[in-house]
Amino acid sequence: MPGLLCVRTMRLILVGFGTVGRGVAESLLASEPELSVAGAEPRVVAVVDPVVGSVRREGGLDLGTLLRLADTGEPLATCPGAETVAGLKEVLEVAGGDVLVELTPTDLHTGEPGLGHVRAALKAGLHVVTTNKGPIALAYHELRTTAHKAGLQLRFEGTVLSGTPVLNLCEAGLAGAGIREIRGVVNGTCNFILTEMEGGTSYATALSKAQHLGYAEADPSGDVEGLDAAAKVLILANSVLDANLKLEDVNRTGISELTAEDIQTARMAGKTWRLIARISQGENGWEAKVGPEEVNRADPEGSLTGPENLLIFDTEALGEVTITGPGAGRRATGHGVIADLLAVHRNVS
Amino acid sequence: MPGLLCVRTMRLILVGFGTVGRGVAESLLASEPELSVAGAEPRVVAVVDPVVGSVRREGGLDLGTLLRLADTGEPLATCPGAETVAGLKEVLEVAGGDVLVELTPTDLHTGEPGLGHVRAALKAGLHVVTTNKGPIALAYHELRTTAHKAGLQLRFEGTVLSGTPVLNLCEAGLAGAGIREIRGVVNGTCNFILTEMEGGTSYATALSKAQHLGYAEADPSGDVEGLDAAAKVLILANSVLDANLKLEDVNRTGISELTAEDIQTARMAGKTWRLIARISQGENGWEAKVGPEEVNRADPEGSLTGPENLLIFDTEALGEVTITGPGAGRRATGHGVIADLLAVHRNVS
Repeated sequence: MPGLLCVRTMRLILVGFGTVGRGVAESLLASEPELSVAGAEPRVVAVVDPVVGSVRREGGLDLGTLLRLADTGEPLATCPGAETVAGLKEVLEVAGGDVLVELTPTDLHTGEPGLGHVRAALKAGLHVVTTNKGPIALAYHELRTTAHKAGLQLRFEGTVLSGTPVLNLCEAGLAGAGIREIRGVVNGTCNFILTEMEGGTSYATALSKAQHLGYAEADPSGDVEGLDAAAKVLILANSVLDANLKLEDVNRTGISELTAEDIQTARMAGKTWRLIARISQGENGWEAKVGPEEVNRADPEGSLTGPENLLIFDTEALGEVTITGPGAGRRATGHGVIADLLAVHRNVS
Repeated sequence: MPGLLCVRTMRLILVGFGTVGRGVAESLLASEPELSVAGAEPRVVAVVDPVVGSVRREGGLDLGTLLRLADTGEPLATCPGAETVAGLKEVLEVAGGDVLVELTPTDLHTGEPGLGHVRAALKAGLHVVTTNKGPIALAYHELRTTAHKAGLQLRFEGTVLSGTPVLNLCEAGLAGAGIREIRGVVNGTCNFILTEMEGGTSYATALSKAQHLGYAEADPSGDVEGLDAAAKVLILANSVLDANLKLEDVNRTGISELTAEDIQTARMAGKTWRLIARISQGENGWEAKVGPEEVNRADPEGSLTGPENLLIFDTEALGEVTITGPGAGRRATGHGVIADLLAVHRNVS
């Protein structure tokens, strides 16, 4: 249901060309027909990455070539027509972008390097789309205020449930519905470990299996101690519910203390443990919590066993609305960026 | 995440002031704070209804008073400051509205009276928001083209899963995701009857219980013969997937032929019957189907037993994304209108 079409080039600067960055490049190629129908013509005018190198080309870089180079370990500078650049500072000065797409890895202690990239882009007058939880979890209100004052868009669908469109859902479909509570399962690695433990596996064995399969990092603490879930719940609370919480305000417990006995006791009662993220109204406004909870196996939370995530929005107008979708994945995260770029296109038309 | 705020009055003309119309009036009152935050100030300048009467007031009618009058069976004309009008034609000539909110009952044979109301409103230069399946199921492409040419919005969230935001989800969050199939449960009355039959009740008894509880109409054929579901699936196919199907193109079977034996045989196999709506790619493009299917009890479709509905979107980018929410209800349908009004406000800012 588009309005009157306005075909327009969006000049993108991609920062980060690792797994996520390449997933976004693939999504841009795959979604070209649908972007085109909407009147959006994204053109990647620069890619900035400390490993594969930083390049720019005013007329647009060929994404297929960049992907081939990065996947074979060759420097992006060998891409025909590409000029080498020193880094983001130079790109912002000379490349003339419309949207900065920030795709560097999350650091929940400092937010860097993403936070610096987002600040610099907004200062330079670019809209920002990011999949990086760090800047949004740590500095949402500051960044939103800066963007707002400058009439710029700041979008981050890929930070929560990867590309499953929960933030778009809240912004459009649930606007005015009166959200009373948000709860759900927002970390797939914990689901995997808990499901393995139900089969009789110990926590240590389940964790090492998750690491072997690439679900969990070598340092798994971000997932199993609930830090990843806490960042997501914080982003939801601050951006959807306009709370003003900090990461340390999230009441957080991980799953590493759960014993085989806890799991089996729940199982005998038809229940199962899940790492539940929850935002509800407390005495002093919104409160956010992440921790293991026993849920009924037949409940939506209990029936998720794999990498899928879900969120349940309890609302005044609709009662409960539940959305389920992938919580991770290169292409899924790439879609979050595509949806955000389409929204930027619509909103500035 | 609003852009720069632009507070603006939206002059609404409500057509239909029965159950749905009053639900919308209640939702407008309840959502006032959230509409106001978004910079939207809806003002109902006219109400047109063949039963309670048609009135207008340039400065806006008091919704609380209108609700009290309608609920006690008094004519709306007794509302202080209200001028009586003959009908929609006169209102469009003199009332000066921005958005027509069409809330009359669905007729899937003629689309009337809603179809005439929507055509007249678009011709008069008004945006249209409707909860009436008739005009959208029977004439979506004609109405969209008219609206598009005139730069007007045509929105109908309330026609599918009442106010559960599936159309908003498709428009924003799933844009560019590459939908391959849509399937789901879109009629709560059939869920109720099938769940009763699993408990050993006959079809006839289950139906009459549904009628007694107000779930099913005196003439239940719209629900149990799958016509209501067919209209919803048609609206999804034509508006979300840009198919060009007619109601008679939907391959439709109802649940009235299911026997107690069918139900029990499925039950022994851990399965259950549900009326499934499905849109998938056939040899000649999109094909739409509504009919009873056996599903696993543990599947999302099988675990719905009450008035909740769900839709599953199978996409290239995300795999399956599922949304579950109410399929009916006065306040839920009212929310669909609120979400659409907010979208009109955003899109024409």
